[in-house]
Order: sequence, then structure tokens, then C-alpha cells
Amino acid sequence: MKRFEEKTIKTESIFKGKVIDLQVDDVELPNGKTSKRELVKHPGAVAIIARTDEGKVIMVEQYRKPLEKSIIEIPAGKLEAGENPEETAKRELAEETGYEADELSFVVSYYTSPGFADEKLYVYEAKGLKLSENRLDGDEDEFVDLVEVTLEEAKQMIKQERIHDAKTIHAIYYLLLDQLNYGID
Amino acid sequence: MKRFEEKTIKTESIFKGKVIDLQVDDVELPNGKTSKRELVKHPGAVAIIARTDEGKVIMVEQYRKPLEKSIIEIPAGKLEAGENPEETAKRELAEETGYEADELSFVVSYYTSPGFADEKLYVYEAKGLKLSENRLDGDEDEFVDLVEVTLEEAKQMIKQERIHDAKTIHAIYYLLLDQLNYGID
Repeated sequence: MKRFEEKTIKTESIFKGKVIDLQVDDVELPNGKTSKRELVKHPGAVAIIARTDEGKVIMVEQYRKPLEKSIIEIPAGKLEAGENPEETAKRELAEETGYEADELSFVVSYYTSPGFADEKLYVYEAKGLKLSENRLDGDEDEFVDLVEVTLEEAKQMIKQERIHDAKTIHAIYYLLLDQLNYGID
Repeated sequence: MKRFEEKTIKTESIFKGKVIDLQVDDVELPNGKTSKRELVKHPGAVAIIARTDEGKVIMVEQYRKPLEKSIIEIPAGKLEAGENPEETAKRELAEETGYEADELSFVVSYYTSPGFADEKLYVYEAKGLKLSENRLDGDEDEFVDLVEVTLEEAKQMIKQERIHDAKTIHAIYYLLLDQLNYGID
């Protein structure tokens, strides 16, 4: 949909990085005036909703430099060049948690911050998990701890603000709806 | 929590904009090696879960330059200097939709993209809505259409990928859980 389209008058590339690029566009608004838009370009990412055979939600704790603290999230990672989202989901699940899934099914995709970034997150649900003998070596600059809690505990952790990550709260709500036999996919 | 802390060796400011700033930090990893982190600084934002007296979910359609298309989202906006999130929520609801709420209650807060940005989103639920006589003039560079649909329609719109925005999907899941009398706040 192109309603209220903002036409690009000029694009300036500010930065090209390992993960993100930044550009500033001059745009013409629907009323004919002009404005500037700051746009973060991101390759896209995946997140994985996964539970152990005992029903525990699989999450990881990792340090997030933008926040200057470590937080608890479902496994996730960005798309590498040439990878499709399902491949990324398998790889990230193995790298971050050591689990392999018999079955991966697509749940939903969504934009994480459409006001300033084009990042799209593809969410998969992993079933039939087995802890692999050799946990894959992940990114050499990534350090994570495995966190496994019941769905009830996860829900409490949202209330206590121990979980305050969008994709993780989405995943827990998804599992709660699923538990109530309220199919949402 | 500081587990796996990444100590800052050097900070370089790349860009300071209207909405976001970008910096690149050199960090020391837990294993003693060094890496670079690209960090988007954002002032934070609010989103509002609101339904009309007839139970329709209030959303807006607006053009999102990072995506080069218009998408449907719950009302939202960034914190202005000196504003607390509740004030922002009232202002954005009025500016974007023309509704005023008798009651605003805090639902949850979460980080939207902790891998590269510090944006925190504060979510409020608005109750007792009245369409004000004078829809507030919003940002002069913001153009939105009001979209009101039933909760069931909203759920279908997620399946059809007509809604693919994180905070909006969160809001719809929240309302579905609430409808099932499954209190999550």
C-alpha cells in the first residue's frame, strides 16, 4: 500500500556497517512540504519459539551493548548473506542453545521498529527438540547462557520486568494462546 | 544484569539526528578479544491499545519510509523531551486518532530491537474513549488514516499479513488473552 506516500527527493548514505546501514532521505510529503527521514537498513532476522519435552520455554541470556545490560530473550539472530530465514532459524537455534528440531514451522513475520528501521523478524516454532552432542560454535563474538523456564514462570517474568523484549513477550503470549487451544496460526 | 559484559574501549559518534543517533563502540569481549558494536540511540516511544465502545480495535494506517509502504499499526509515537510516557500516550492518541480516554493504564514495556537499538516501548491501554470535537493537530509531517476493526478481523489481518507490526500483533494477542479472561497484567 502506498497511501500517503513520501517521495524521495534525495538519499544520503551516512554509514555502512557490519549489521546496519544508515541513510537520511529528503522526502516530499503528501501536502507538498519536505521533511527528512532517518532510515536504518537491517538484513532481517529470525526468532525461534521452542519448548523442551518437559514444556519449558527455551531462552538465552546475553549482553546487549545498546542497553548496557544482559537480557533474557528467545533464541534469535540476523540473516546472513544468501541464507533463507528457515536456515537461519536452524543455525541460530543450534549455535545459541545446542538444540536441533525435528520440525520448524513458520509462525508470523513482523517489523520490529517501522518508524526508523526496516528490520523484519521471521518467527518460527521448533518442535521435537534434541540436545545435539556438539553444541555448534556460534559467532566468535557472541556469549550466551541457556535459560529454561515453565510457561507460567515466563509469564511471571514479564510481570516482574525480568523479560522485557518484544519478540520474547510475543512468543510467550503465543504459547499462552496455544495452551488455551486458541489457534492463532 | 551484567553477565558477559562488553566493556567499552572507544566510542565514536557517527550521526546525531532528529529521531535517532548512531554510534560505533569498540568493545572488549568476555574472552578478552575485541569487536565493534553499532548502536542506534532512540528516545523511547509509546503505543496505545484502545477499543471503541463497540469493541473495535483502533489502529492507524501510515506511510513508513523505512519500508517504502504504508502499514497498519496501533497508535504510537516517540517521547518528546521532558514528556513522561503517559503524557506521550495521551498526546499521540489524540493527535493520531482524535480519541480521548477516561483512563490510561500501563500494560508492559519492552525493547523493540535490542540487537542494535536501545528503543524502549511503553504500552498503555486506554479505556472510556470519546471522540473529541477537535482532533488535535499532530506533527505537521505525519499523515494517518483511522482504521477500526473487530478483534476477530484484526486476528485475520495478522494471518493475511495485512498486519505485520510487532507492537500491533502484541496488542491483538493481549486483547485475545484478555477476552479469554486470561489476565496477563
